[in-house]
Amino acid sequence: MNIREILNEVQAGHLSVEDAERKLGRGAIADMGFARLDNHRDHRTGFIEVVYCLGKTPEQAAVILKQQSTTQRALLATRADRHHADAVAQVLPEIEYHPVAGILRRLDPGRRVDALPIGIISAGTSDLSVAEEAALTVETVGHTVLRRYDVGVAGLHRVASIRDELNACGCLIVVAGMEGALPSVVSGLVSRPVIAVPTSIGYGVALGGFAALLAMLSSCAPGVSVVNIDNGFGAAIAACRINTPAVRRSGAPGA
Amino acid sequence: MNIREILNEVQAGHLSVEDAERKLGRGAIADMGFARLDNHRDHRTGFIEVVYCLGKTPEQAAVILKQQSTTQRALLATRADRHHADAVAQVLPEIEYHPVAGILRRLDPGRRVDALPIGIISAGTSDLSVAEEAALTVETVGHTVLRRYDVGVAGLHRVASIRDELNACGCLIVVAGMEGALPSVVSGLVSRPVIAVPTSIGYGVALGGFAALLAMLSSCAPGVSVVNIDNGFGAAIAACRINTPAVRRSGAPGA
Amino acid sequence: MNIREILNEVQAGHLSVEDAERKLGRGAIADMGFARLDNHRDHRTGFIEVVYCLGKTPEQAAVILKQQSTTQRALLATRADRHHADAVAQVLPEIEYHPVAGILRRLDPGRRVDALPIGIISAGTSDLSVAEEAALTVETVGHTVLRRYDVGVAGLHRVASIRDELNACGCLIVVAGMEGALPSVVSGLVSRPVIAVPTSIGYGVALGGFAALLAMLSSCAPGVSVVNIDNGFGAAIAACRINTPAVRRSGAPGA
Amino acid sequence: MNIREILNEVQAGHLSVEDAERKLGRGAIADMGFARLDNHRDHRTGFIEVVYCLGKTPEQAAVILKQQSTTQRALLATRADRHHADAVAQVLPEIEYHPVAGILRRLDPGRRVDALPIGIISAGTSDLSVAEEAALTVETVGHTVLRRYDVGVAGLHRVASIRDELNACGCLIVVAGMEGALPSVVSGLVSRPVIAVPTSIGYGVALGGFAALLAMLSSCAPGVSVVNIDNGFGAAIAACRINTPAVRRSGAPGA
Amino acid sequence: MNIREILNEVQAGHLSVEDAERKLGRGAIADMGFARLDNHRDHRTGFIEVVYCLGKTPEQAAVILKQQSTTQRALLATRADRHHADAVAQVLPEIEYHPVAGILRRLDPGRRVDALPIGIISAGTSDLSVAEEAALTVETVGHTVLRRYDVGVAGLHRVASIRDELNACGCLIVVAGMEGALPSVVSGLVSRPVIAVPTSIGYGVALGGFAALLAMLSSCAPGVSVVNIDNGFGAAIAACRINTPAVRRSGAPGA
Amino acid sequence: MNIREILNEVQAGHLSVEDAERKLGRGAIADMGFARLDNHRDHRTGFIEVVYCLGKTPEQAAVILKQQSTTQRALLATRADRHHADAVAQVLPEIEYHPVAGILRRLDPGRRVDALPIGIISAGTSDLSVAEEAALTVETVGHTVLRRYDVGVAGLHRVASIRDELNACGCLIVVAGMEGALPSVVSGLVSRPVIAVPTSIGYGVALGGFAALLAMLSSCAPGVSVVNIDNGFGAAIAACRINTPAVRRSGAPGA
Amino acid sequence: MNIREILNEVQAGHLSVEDAERKLGRGAIADMGFARLDNHRDHRTGFIEVVYCLGKTPEQAAVILKQQSTTQRALLATRADRHHADAVAQVLPEIEYHPVAGILRRLDPGRRVDALPIGIISAGTSDLSVAEEAALTVETVGHTVLRRYDVGVAGLHRVASIRDELNACGCLIVVAGMEGALPSVVSGLVSRPVIAVPTSIGYGVALGGFAALLAMLSSCAPGVSVVNIDNGFGAAIAACRINTPAVRRSGAPGA
Amino acid sequence: MNIREILNEVQAGHLSVEDAERKLGRGAIADMGFARLDNHRDHRTGFIEVVYCLGKTPEQAAVILKQQSTTQRALLATRADRHHADAVAQVLPEIEYHPVAGILRRLDPGRRVDALPIGIISAGTSDLSVAEEAALTVETVGHTVLRRYDVGVAGLHRVASIRDELNACGCLIVVAGMEGALPSVVSGLVSRPVIAVPTSIGYGVALGGFAALLAMLSSCAPGVSVVNIDNGFGAAIAACRINTPAVRRSGAPGA
Repeated sequence: MNIREILNEVQAGHLSVEDAERKLGRGAIADMGFARLDNHRDHRTGFIEVVYCLGKTPEQAAVILKQQSTTQRALLATRADRHHADAVAQVLPEIEYHPVAGILRRLDPGRRVDALPIGIISAGTSDLSVAEEAALTVETVGHTVLRRYDVGVAGLHRVASIRDELNACGCLIVVAGMEGALPSVVSGLVSRPVIAVPTSIGYGVALGGFAALLAMLSSCAPGVSVVNIDNGFGAAIAACRINTPAVRRSGAPGA
Repeated sequence: MNIREILNEVQAGHLSVEDAERKLGRGAIADMGFARLDNHRDHRTGFIEVVYCLGKTPEQAAVILKQQSTTQRALLATRADRHHADAVAQVLPEIEYHPVAGILRRLDPGRRVDALPIGIISAGTSDLSVAEEAALTVETVGHTVLRRYDVGVAGLHRVASIRDELNACGCLIVVAGMEGALPSVVSGLVSRPVIAVPTSIGYGVALGGFAALLAMLSSCAPGVSVVNIDNGFGAAIAACRINTPAVRRSGAPGA
Repeated sequence: MNIREILNEVQAGHLSVEDAERKLGRGAIADMGFARLDNHRDHRTGFIEVVYCLGKTPEQAAVILKQQSTTQRALLATRADRHHADAVAQVLPEIEYHPVAGILRRLDPGRRVDALPIGIISAGTSDLSVAEEAALTVETVGHTVLRRYDVGVAGLHRVASIRDELNACGCLIVVAGMEGALPSVVSGLVSRPVIAVPTSIGYGVALGGFAALLAMLSSCAPGVSVVNIDNGFGAAIAACRINTPAVRRSGAPGA
Repeated sequence: MNIREILNEVQAGHLSVEDAERKLGRGAIADMGFARLDNHRDHRTGFIEVVYCLGKTPEQAAVILKQQSTTQRALLATRADRHHADAVAQVLPEIEYHPVAGILRRLDPGRRVDALPIGIISAGTSDLSVAEEAALTVETVGHTVLRRYDVGVAGLHRVASIRDELNACGCLIVVAGMEGALPSVVSGLVSRPVIAVPTSIGYGVALGGFAALLAMLSSCAPGVSVVNIDNGFGAAIAACRINTPAVRRSGAPGA
Repeated sequence: MNIREILNEVQAGHLSVEDAERKLGRGAIADMGFARLDNHRDHRTGFIEVVYCLGKTPEQAAVILKQQSTTQRALLATRADRHHADAVAQVLPEIEYHPVAGILRRLDPGRRVDALPIGIISAGTSDLSVAEEAALTVETVGHTVLRRYDVGVAGLHRVASIRDELNACGCLIVVAGMEGALPSVVSGLVSRPVIAVPTSIGYGVALGGFAALLAMLSSCAPGVSVVNIDNGFGAAIAACRINTPAVRRSGAPGA
Repeated sequence: MNIREILNEVQAGHLSVEDAERKLGRGAIADMGFARLDNHRDHRTGFIEVVYCLGKTPEQAAVILKQQSTTQRALLATRADRHHADAVAQVLPEIEYHPVAGILRRLDPGRRVDALPIGIISAGTSDLSVAEEAALTVETVGHTVLRRYDVGVAGLHRVASIRDELNACGCLIVVAGMEGALPSVVSGLVSRPVIAVPTSIGYGVALGGFAALLAMLSSCAPGVSVVNIDNGFGAAIAACRINTPAVRRSGAPGA
Repeated sequence: MNIREILNEVQAGHLSVEDAERKLGRGAIADMGFARLDNHRDHRTGFIEVVYCLGKTPEQAAVILKQQSTTQRALLATRADRHHADAVAQVLPEIEYHPVAGILRRLDPGRRVDALPIGIISAGTSDLSVAEEAALTVETVGHTVLRRYDVGVAGLHRVASIRDELNACGCLIVVAGMEGALPSVVSGLVSRPVIAVPTSIGYGVALGGFAALLAMLSSCAPGVSVVNIDNGFGAAIAACRINTPAVRRSGAPGA
Repeated sequence: MNIREILNEVQAGHLSVEDAERKLGRGAIADMGFARLDNHRDHRTGFIEVVYCLGKTPEQAAVILKQQSTTQRALLATRADRHHADAVAQVLPEIEYHPVAGILRRLDPGRRVDALPIGIISAGTSDLSVAEEAALTVETVGHTVLRRYDVGVAGLHRVASIRDELNACGCLIVVAGMEGALPSVVSGLVSRPVIAVPTSIGYGVALGGFAALLAMLSSCAPGVSVVNIDNGFGAAIAACRINTPAVRRSGAPGA
């Protein structure tokens, strides 16, 4: 119920002032003591709340996912290690675990967006885990993925050879560590939006991904926007929002 | 001509090997001595080459824009000061100068994209110049703009009150300095893509925009991607790419 | 009107749904085009909205202060230079200008808080402008100030000699640049809350106030909290909140 | 004995010059070889000396706490791991150990401050250990705590729904990692003092808490002061000082 | 085949347009799914593609090296730990493993460059692993090495005593940690090109090699260029390029 | 009067308790409103209080120096520009102004320390102003100076040729910008204490003196200690303390 | 005279011990009070001492160059502004001044190195001043230059089209600001040594050239070494050393 | 033999030119393959070469110390862990190991400097290991130590009470982590030289000792010079140089 609907209910006498007040302020939260689930997030922002496992115990992750599983079909947890995976599998045996990407997920077969694929390309083999975190997230949201890995700028013909494929995507996620030059090069070759993901691959002045981050943000090729270092998940959500056609709303729910 | 077309011409005997080789490698550049114009950029990336005035003399800016004016209708120059504006007006009297944004432009009335507006919101009055750099660029590319300024998080009701308007945009550019919290808050309220622009507004630990940049990249609200500090132009180009519907290509030009 | 009052009006039929919806979302803002004044801020946060002049033109500052003067008696603007002062004096001749502190203000004689003084001490003469920004703000909010300047740690007896005076304050603002050791020393001597303000005084490794900031945040003497470099204003507002007795609320307005 | 009392004793002939000199300089220290306990700290600063376990051996922690237990009822040690806890339990079996917060404490039932509760809110579940370090410290000093966890800005309705509760506190401790936006939002909603605690939760540009720290110090919402990253203890002591009513002193002990 | 040759083949009817297009774009890549080998790199850049083991599993390293062994004699992998070494030895028993340098290599006896030796000198014993990474790489490319280790500036006579030997080298690699002063001193003594390699040796302000890096880049002695911290491999490749006589090309392959 | 003397006076009845209390706490300070002069500093620390002009108005500098001139013969002010010099000359016509070093001083002919000279050497001509700030300060304290400038490490024979002169000094101040290697080299050549002063000479990665600072602090040559960037004054005071023979004290004044 | 020659003279009785000692230590320096010229540098390091004008007065620059002109034909000064140029022209009317590059020089027609050209390429028009500082220096040393400017990675065909020209150079200087990707791309295309020069072009996260510097040092394309930000001069000297054929020495002068 | 002596021998015919040349350049080094011992360092700089164990294998440490033991009585190794200690004890059973300080040493009973003690004071118990590294080094050089630990600024009376003892030392080493305020406070109380040692104690903004380092270098109390973070050894050597009386030299050996 949005504000207008609640007010209509009050005016109509179907809802008491006390209940309306509560609904307006507090209704969207499932309070679990150590966590407050944001049940309306899918409706409000276009995707379900996702569990970030780093800093959570395996048990906390399991309890939260189990609780979410009662109200939604798709489930997604990131930065999950083997211990999180084991604990979650106890309560949700159908969960998939992808160890390279640190992803736990349950796909919702009914969640399929009719759109062009989202292209995910990486500069090197070492960027695989970040690229896969993005790819698996994109699929969970319901989009399709075109994967093209290990096409870094030290051998430019590798990326030039896939230019047509990239231009046929709805948008692109470009994953690179070290000097982070790939998004600039890609953005100069194509006309689709490019989301750049710096990775922490490299040593010394690579500064755990900061060299790549600064390079991507300084790109001379406009059309590039950037997410946090190693944040394949964030890039995926941004790409899915981009790849989801906007619709003109009137009296939209949740407004 | 793309590679296939050139090859067809060679096979058909309409094009000599020498000419084909030159076309494949060097045809797309107008060499002006101190600058090489990239005449194919509009075709290849979706927008014309834009003149970045910082570090260029007024005369250089004027010569480049004049040269561009012979092959394209829309013109855009950023970071232009009064001296650039005067020099350009000598050779292109029809140019518009927007001093707050540092923008020189000539609109192309025929360049109109059929799409939802791009929303541009700013946290404070001091962020105006960056927000306007973005807005004027978006308009030059041919999209429409919804401006909503001074809606920072210290008074949350200001941004909450425009939520419906924001959800009705194709995508959003959110401009903020200081602690840079506005993109997180906006992204949690809406389902459209959010491009965050940190500004150099603030002092001390604001670090010339780095506090805002780090905050935006660390956002707990997924769906946000970020451009360089004060880079209204870059945000605008990224937003226009996002707001331009992708089309399925086959034998696409430039491929 | 708070949410409950609005709902009561709707239930009683005294307020249409449309009007209620607007009130719930947008009523608290005066939209001036380039700025949206937050008229409820005094009620909501305990102090009026203050004008931060840096990055605003003299004319913008003058228009905003003039608009504020129609709804409130006390006025305060920070980081004002001579040009801001002149423009504001045109429309508000009664305004006071304090050039060392960069403060423009109009005191409200009726705004007097019954509380202990707020002590403001500084390490060196060079910290004067920041200390005075704090002191003049505190007075504008309605508290009294005890000023004790130039008592840095290179001559410890200077601060030790005023220990009794400091313990008789409601809370303390300690302003220091360079190595920023004074808050640690003061906090070890007294039992009142200490708000530390690093200043940009110093050169080289002082890093524009960062050495002092880091030292203050690393203080081995608990009870110290810190604000931004040179942020005398922020320290003052925090001190005034601390120095204002809390009251138990029930059915509070704005809740 | 304060300076005046010592001088009176000397004048009266009850104290030799040698003894007075020693008292003025050295009386307040218990020298344990590797540590000098500051027995007057409670009297001077309002709270007992607390043991910081990081960098101390379990045995050192145990010896110091045992020694403190002979002169004071309340005991508190922070950053204690399991090894510290075991060693201390050997000599002080009544000690409580809180592993999430790394706190060892012995409450003093007689230490109860008559004041409003101190509100402690956190942005995410991962901030729990820091929030609990603060909460357990506050209780040891003798204040009461209102805990409200996991109310981050990605779902603003969570914090908006508890606004009344927060305004009914004496002061607030706001714990957040990542982009650290919660203190700005809270400070714009309430009128009580806000102490912000950045946490090291996050990765990449979160920079171990620095992104949150910079954001909190840059906050556009005045009234916020900040402590070190993960410093729940320091925030608690600052909050307790704030929450303890000031008293007008005359001839105060220790002055 | 270079572009001209391919075009000639097309004109002559020996090559179809489809095949030519593929050759122009994709022929130089061996796609292994998780990696795309750049088989033309030796031809194009003067040295084979080298396997960077950090972030690769032992199995990935083994598969890539095995694949490379089918088309080239010399093999080189850097940052290899014992696990990489074991996995590679399973499939390439003739591989050499140098644990101090983390190098896996197979020498190509036929790859011998006729040139002066490359001098490699280090400031301290602790810089050995980086110096050896450089030395073993240089040898794999086919140049000879003059090793002179532990000649740091705290005892200047050590480096002064080998000045003649250094001037008799084709170029010099100077490896140093801590304050990184050795390249400045060497460059002032000799007339050969100096490539400086900062190492992560040191603690505190040495900043993991950044103090040395900044010092080397700030050198008052011209003729010094610098590579990444601990990047013995990169220094070696740069030195080998320098030490390989340039030849005037006409219709060069790959042009 | 030290503490013991004051206590003796009280015991003897020559001093009232009130006066003694005041003397113990406040007697050593000349309160000038905006500044509190520390008149006992010479006695306590071995040198007079020095006026740091940066951030002070010319008038403030003049008033403070005039006040100091009533109680001491030697006067010293650092970071003085032409305006400070003019204002001070109005009230102290005998003052010397050294514009390169930014020093204002009045020598005290009676202040002569019997000690070896203090050697001051600089790496380049551009470091002159910092070296002279040190040299003029040393002379004001009463020591003699041996100046040797422009002996940087790019030509090692320049410093090697003055080794004997350096070893004949009481201690050495070594001033260098850029890579800051000179102190390491000097400290390896001599046995006297070396105080290193990084200067802000250089650009890019020299980072305003930080490259030199880090290098000096990371020096592999023990015996070097470091002061702030461009802090010739601080180096001079440290050197003078070192160069002043320690004396065994008993019942020392000020103890 | 080298050490051996001096010793022979002593043995033969042609040189006294005192004179020999002086020659061994001090002979190579022209002491001008504020500067010590290093007359042997050309002999020792392959190029004359160059005057760095930043931080020197116009008069100092003029005196030093005049003094150098008595012993050498070629003269070079960098970072010279108009004031330096005017002062030098007074005493050396034949000097050339290049304002874009800040270079003062006098060519020595007899200094011509027989070698391939040194290629200098830049990413953008704004990098011109740094590229020209390099080019003019290279020419002064006696090498020839191939200039190719404005070939940045946003339009890759610009650099690809000049690949043959680059491979025909002795070595390459690649100048780029912003994300600094050009050296990586060039190094992957050619087999000659690449010296990368980051420029301070850009804003925000470009960090005055640090983003480009970090990217260049992190380059995934081996063969790149790097000099300080904006250091066209240093790159030129390094390139000239590389481009000068090494010769096998025996009993070399200066050894 | 110094240069003059060697020349005299040559002139007298007692030494061939070849031998003299070798002695002038290479005589002072014991080449061990992986290390070159600097046997003249004690003579040249006042103290023996010390073994820095970090980054050396236990075996390397043992071999170097064993070799040194043949030419000198005193031995010292820093940053030694248990493994280094065990390996060294195998070959030098008389070695002492101090695990808290990480020091291995053999005292030379004949090395006793007649001087005042060197005072070593630390702010907290956690700084013990650094303070002891300094203390044990000082003793090995032959000076005596006055230890005063845990006298930090949170309880100022602790340091004030030992002021006389500090003034009776030849010089002071002040060890502190966190905000690093103790050296400023001590330097304001005493007249002896103060060497400040920042420690890596602390967390968050303490930045591994950088907050303390910056504070110490920014100290408003002149007379303080600083060494690297945790560098107790370096502070000790600097202090010993300071504490060793300078002697006027003529024809000094090694000059």
